[in-house]
This record gives sequence, C-alpha cells and structure tokens, in this order.
Amino acid sequence: MRAALMYGAGDVRVENVPDPQIVEPTDAVVKVVAACICGSDLWPYASKVPTAEGARMGHEFVGTVEEIGADVTGISVGDFVIAPFVASDGTCDYCREGLQTSCRHGAHWGSDGVDGGQGERVRVPQASGTLVVVPAGFDEQLVPSLLALSDVMSTGYHAATKGGVAPGKSVTVIGDGAVGLSAVLAAKMLGAERIILMGRHAERTKLGREFGASDVVVERGADGVARVKELTAGDGTHVVLEAVGLKPALETAFQVVRPGGVISRVGAPQFEDVPFGFGPFMQNITLTGGVAPARAYIEKLLALVLDGVIQPGKVFDRVIGLEEVPAGYRDMADRKVLKVLVRP
Amino acid sequence: MRAALMYGAGDVRVENVPDPQIVEPTDAVVKVVAACICGSDLWPYASKVPTAEGARMGHEFVGTVEEIGADVTGISVGDFVIAPFVASDGTCDYCREGLQTSCRHGAHWGSDGVDGGQGERVRVPQASGTLVVVPAGFDEQLVPSLLALSDVMSTGYHAATKGGVAPGKSVTVIGDGAVGLSAVLAAKMLGAERIILMGRHAERTKLGREFGASDVVVERGADGVARVKELTAGDGTHVVLEAVGLKPALETAFQVVRPGGVISRVGAPQFEDVPFGFGPFMQNITLTGGVAPARAYIEKLLALVLDGVIQPGKVFDRVIGLEEVPAGYRDMADRKVLKVLVRP
Repeated sequence: MRAALMYGAGDVRVENVPDPQIVEPTDAVVKVVAACICGSDLWPYASKVPTAEGARMGHEFVGTVEEIGADVTGISVGDFVIAPFVASDGTCDYCREGLQTSCRHGAHWGSDGVDGGQGERVRVPQASGTLVVVPAGFDEQLVPSLLALSDVMSTGYHAATKGGVAPGKSVTVIGDGAVGLSAVLAAKMLGAERIILMGRHAERTKLGREFGASDVVVERGADGVARVKELTAGDGTHVVLEAVGLKPALETAFQVVRPGGVISRVGAPQFEDVPFGFGPFMQNITLTGGVAPARAYIEKLLALVLDGVIQPGKVFDRVIGLEEVPAGYRDMADRKVLKVLVRP
Repeated sequence: MRAALMYGAGDVRVENVPDPQIVEPTDAVVKVVAACICGSDLWPYASKVPTAEGARMGHEFVGTVEEIGADVTGISVGDFVIAPFVASDGTCDYCREGLQTSCRHGAHWGSDGVDGGQGERVRVPQASGTLVVVPAGFDEQLVPSLLALSDVMSTGYHAATKGGVAPGKSVTVIGDGAVGLSAVLAAKMLGAERIILMGRHAERTKLGREFGASDVVVERGADGVARVKELTAGDGTHVVLEAVGLKPALETAFQVVRPGGVISRVGAPQFEDVPFGFGPFMQNITLTGGVAPARAYIEKLLALVLDGVIQPGKVFDRVIGLEEVPAGYRDMADRKVLKVLVRP
C-alpha cells in the first residue's frame, strides 16, 4: 500500500510500504477514509535530522474497519470509526480516569512498528479501547468534522476543560491555528462570557469569530498584551488557552491572565523553562493542560457533531490525495493552508 | 512602643517606634497578644542589603482591638482577633472570589507605612475586611493554634485545597517546615488516602506523623524520588504539596507527581524558571498554588480549632518575648527552632 514517510526536515515522500496485518489479537486493520496533516507534524518538518529510513507520519484518521483480531470487542468489520491520536487499552487506571494518553499499554501512530494515519491502511493496536464507532456510519458530509475529533477539536476541548472555562468566565485564546480555533469553539460550548482570540491571519480569525470569538487581537508581544488588558479593564482574563507551543506565546499567556486565573496550554512546548517565578506565584496563577486525551472526549463531541451543534471540520481548508501529501506539508509550513485533509 | 526592625541580613533590632494611630476611618488599632517569626522572614534575614532605615517585620499576629475608625463595622473594641498575613477590604471582586491576596485595596504588614506584627501594636488597614473575630474571645490555651491560622495553617490548607486533595488521593508533601507540616495536617483533613512527607529533621517529621503523614522519606534528590516511587508502585502521587520554595524542591515535585497529577506549591519561589517543558506536558501535570489568601480559610479553620478537631499550633516549639526577637531569628535560621511564637 502507499503511505507518507518523513526522511528529514522538508523531506516527505509517499512510498510503497507493507500492507498492515493483525499482529496481536487486540488489533484491528482500518482502511483510512480521511487523514490530516497536523500542526505538530510541522515541528519535525522544520527540524528533523535526515535519516536513511523514513518515519511513518500522521496520527489523525477516520476509516472503515476491514479486519479485527480475535480479542477485539465492540468493533465490527465495516464499522466507520474515529481514531484518537494515541492508542489506548480503555481498561487501565489511567484510561478509566480519562487520561488515555498515559495508558499503560498505549501506542503512538507512526512509532514502535505502528502505521501512521497518512496512508491507505493502519494497524490499530488495542482496537477495542482506541477506536470510537460512529453509530450513524459513514456520511460524506460529516467526514471533516468527525476527523477533527481525532485531534484538533478534542485538543481544543481539553484546553478549555482543563482551563475551567464556564459561564461567566473570560477567555483569551493564543494562536489562530486549527487548535486555537477549536479552543475558541470549545470555550464557546462551555459557556465563556467573552472570548478574545489573539491571531493575525484574517481568514483564520474570521473563522474564529464564527466559532465564537467576541474580540480579535492582531497585535503580538507587548502590544498584544496591552490590547487584551485594555479589553479587560486592565485585569486580563480568567482563563488563557495557549495553542502555539512557543515560549513567547506562553510568556504572553502569563501577562494576560487575571490574578487567580488559569493558563491551559495545549501547544506542545518547544522549550524547557517556563517563566513561572515569584510574580505569578503572588498572583496565584495555575498552569495546566498538556497533551489531550482525545479518546476521553470523542463520544461527547461526536454526539454534538451528529446533532449538527458543532462543525469543527470547518478548520480544513484544503483536501488533497495521498500522493499530494508532500505538497500539503509545504503549504501548511508556508501558512498557505490552515489544515489539510487527506483522502487516500 | 517597641517593635522589631530588620536593617539587613542577620541584623534585626528591637527599637522604639511611634505608637500606631487611626489614619483612615477603616483602620483599627490592635494590641498584639502573640506574633510569629515566619519562614519567609528568613529570606531577607539571609540576604537583605543593609539599609539606614530598618524595615518593620512580622505578618502573623493575634490580638485585642483597642480602637476602631469611624467606618469599621463588625469589629468592636475588646474583640480578640486573628489577622491574616495580608490586609484586604473584603468587598472587592477578588475578595469575594476568595483571593484576598489580590485585593484591590490590600496592604502588607511592614510595608507602605503599615506596622509589622512583631511589635506591641499594629494599625490594621481595612479592618472590617481583614480581621476575624474569635467568637469565644481570648483563651490562653488556644493562642498558638489561633495564631497559626494567620499564615502557616492557612497556607498549608491553601496548598492542599488548590492541589485538589480529596479522599482516595495520594499526596507527597515536600518540606518539613511549619508550612509543610501544616500541609500534612490539611491533607489529612481533606481525606488524603496516603501522605508521604519528605523531610529529614526527626523532631519535625515526628510531628508530621502526628498530623497524619503515613510515610516519611528522609532522602533527598534522586534518592528521595526513588523512595517515593518505590512507595507508589513507580507512579508517584496524585498530588504534591511543595512547601520549600527552592528550585530543587520543585524539581523533585515534578519527579514524584503521577501523570495527570497536580503540584501545588506554597513555598515562595526563590527562582524564576520552572522546568516545565515537553516531558511534564506529555504527562498532563498541573502546577498551581501561590501565596495563600489566608483570610478565605480562617473562619472555617477557626471553627475546627475551637472544636478541638485540629491543633495547628503544635508547630510552635519556642515562646519568646519581644526583646528576644533577634535571637529568635538566629535560632530559626540555624534550624534550632521550627517556629517561634512571640509574646510582646
């Protein structure tokens, strides 16, 4: 079958790879109907050291179950399923607590001999725990929004949930990428009173307003901070959702959060040290968030997608075939595209 | 009147200062019955640059109301009162939210022309919002435990509350100072299933066990981390209460917290950068805590002290007079004493 592999920074190729097969009795094989290129795929695309063997890519996909192992329950051949971006057994203590990203038998797509989502088929470990069946089955119209639950929408929802967004709360969302916009939608769902979106790409912030942003701040750095302060009578917001992962974004978060407030970050940090010393200590700031256990949220969000309450798939602004994946990376890295949907 | 002043590192003197008077109609004057030397007073005692004018010291006291301003309500002359370690108006949005340390009209003892607690009398700003009347009045036996509510016990309780300590949770407390021990007591009150106290002073950890610690880890650094991991089947604890304020303590906290867990710190950080990068992000660690809004907790804790449920005053292991305050600093800095109670 065909699949995308990354050989180094800027070097993505689509090649022939072995067809996946059931290895463990808990596995399933899923034919990919749609996959994504993720903002987080752009980190290695910018910096990966060249390797002789390519790395399988893609950790977001929806598809049809083609084969199941002997121990798989709750999933049948022919089911249309959503795969969260980490595989998990669904039974360990972490999974039962809703922290499937720390599953004791978890696996990551594209590593440890597991296929990536950017390919024709995927062997899914721990299929019973990992996959979520779409009860309504395949529906072409819903593919983008169901696919968004694999990662970006669940990640935005994780940010908002961990941030304690609730009616009466003011929220700043830092970053107008697909996750930032999903965080806006999640904050709106959770009843935020005011949502200030910090981003400077007009097309994206337009979607942000559609998702529920009440204000858009295009300025960055000190000017951006000043603008948020101006909008909040000098106080900042109760919650800040940080969806970038670079240090200046987190520094901004500390400057626009209200005393007693919460910074919830879902941008994977590309740095080690957080400026979280005496000043924010005296203001009782909380820093939370982390990699999203998408599996914990998919059922709830799926119901809202099926009911037409939310349309998180609007973050996709280009559809490509599998062979076009290298160009898709390039266009996302060049910010020509917000988020790419791949139809193998 | 007499009061303690700090002129520089290691240089505390007791001198004559002007008697406090009502300045604002919201002020009260309180005759100090008992005050403390705080672990946080030891930071300037170790490092303060010498100054010609001494700084008034002390931010924990209980006493008797001697005089009230025209606008003071709810407080009467003769009342026995507890002062939290920050003055607050009790009416602003932060105070109503229980974050009195961010009060819009707050004041700190010993700064901005406000007296310190280590003296004979104190002018109390925003007296109606700040002071908590002890309904039972003065009781010699209860003085230490009531005094502990000014800061250390409320601070320990803040740590445990912000950390989400609850039945079924495992807790590590880092630091066997008066705040760490108070955090143990608070964690016990909130129903923690297991409380591991990291500390190496036998007298202190003995009190820690009395307060509810189920295990004591005397090792520090990597050995201490290994020991906590051993006690928790390799996982660490759901909650870590950090009551030191030095970077190695917080580094230890990140190493003994369970994935999905919470580090709640009340040790005032003596550093800026927190090692909170990709690793703890992938484990969904939360870092919370901060300076304790003692005022938010005193009424609740006071009821438990009056009912004999808790005896947080056990952290005091020496009583001195006001003239002995310089020696009290020395002995606390030299770790000869856990916490000093001053009777002016």
